[in-house]
Amino acid sequence: MSPTLTLYGYWRSSAVYRVRIALNLKALDYHYQPLHLLRDGGEQHGADYRALNPQQLIPCLLDGDRAITQSLAIMEYLDETFPEPALLPSDSRGRARVRELAMAVACDIHPLGNLRVLQRLEAQFGADDVQRAEWSRHWIATGFDALEAMLADNPATGRFCHGDTPGLADACLVPQFYNALRWKLPLENYPTLQRIHAACNELEAFQRAAPERQPDAV
Amino acid sequence: MSPTLTLYGYWRSSAVYRVRIALNLKALDYHYQPLHLLRDGGEQHGADYRALNPQQLIPCLLDGDRAITQSLAIMEYLDETFPEPALLPSDSRGRARVRELAMAVACDIHPLGNLRVLQRLEAQFGADDVQRAEWSRHWIATGFDALEAMLADNPATGRFCHGDTPGLADACLVPQFYNALRWKLPLENYPTLQRIHAACNELEAFQRAAPERQPDAV
Repeated sequence: MSPTLTLYGYWRSSAVYRVRIALNLKALDYHYQPLHLLRDGGEQHGADYRALNPQQLIPCLLDGDRAITQSLAIMEYLDETFPEPALLPSDSRGRARVRELAMAVACDIHPLGNLRVLQRLEAQFGADDVQRAEWSRHWIATGFDALEAMLADNPATGRFCHGDTPGLADACLVPQFYNALRWKLPLENYPTLQRIHAACNELEAFQRAAPERQPDAV
Repeated sequence: MSPTLTLYGYWRSSAVYRVRIALNLKALDYHYQPLHLLRDGGEQHGADYRALNPQQLIPCLLDGDRAITQSLAIMEYLDETFPEPALLPSDSRGRARVRELAMAVACDIHPLGNLRVLQRLEAQFGADDVQRAEWSRHWIATGFDALEAMLADNPATGRFCHGDTPGLADACLVPQFYNALRWKLPLENYPTLQRIHAACNELEAFQRAAPERQPDAV
């Protein structure tokens, strides 16, 4: 059966990386449609894609004729539509905790280091490469300080962010950790994040989602 | 009965405003605990609050002994715990659409104009008031351009963002619109956002959540 799911993405996009992990954890087959964010002024700004996603951001998941945007909304949709294995725990407080962790990445770290933000820092403030890297490291460090505290002392933390099953929070943490490595953030203050990152990357679902494994990786 | 819910917030915080709307829509009684974000270097950085929320951000909702952070995680938790009236539609595709709209605000507009980001622009790039306002307007306009397109031509849009019942997306849109007014963003390109904003503000749940109506408003 050919896949009915199409994922629009870019190999190094952190938000798309999350959705690849979620799709792989659920063993869902999908068609991957790369968009080059830098070529021709950014393929995400083209008319065809803009009709699917007026935000002109990635990812976008097509399920049949329905386009879903926003990585967290996509992962919630996948969890409702293909419930097993679950990305969220079965209890309401557990779900709140996992969403908190996911959003601590998706709302408070990742948006600040996004390509369009770095481009804007250059355009408005003349930020050079060194300053943009400093900016990115600052927000990742601020977020990781909090995440380490949220995870290290909490009995709900297990082999993964929540218990011993990988889920929504892990799907957000690992791509952000990838960005931290890319920006050469010192990681010695984050032993719990390091441990969970390593545990995730032992799993094939995470390995296959890695940026370097994507067909559009350069 | 005295309320078991305590909301830590600040009158002008957009993320706290969202949660106030959600609590009011569900007619839930709650204790409001203001934190002053600017006094004494920011009360959100104090040891007591940091123990509740290592992110040192607001809002935080206490339900008994359980602290829940991240406005969207709080609203999802409220919707699961106090289901009526629902903040999310009953169908999975509808929920995906409402979450998309909410996250287009909560992930892609609001984090970029947050107090700590404006403070960092000043610290790292010497951004003055005019430049910080320009930065804020740029990101709200970028996000509103997309939201207008997502809402204007979609048959699922009704009197509110999704159908004729206010919900999660409206609870995100109205506080962001408040910020747009504060930054004096020209709004003539956003007739649908204006219409929905006005419809929301006819409701007492939204009126009572307004920043100026909070006890810590100055």
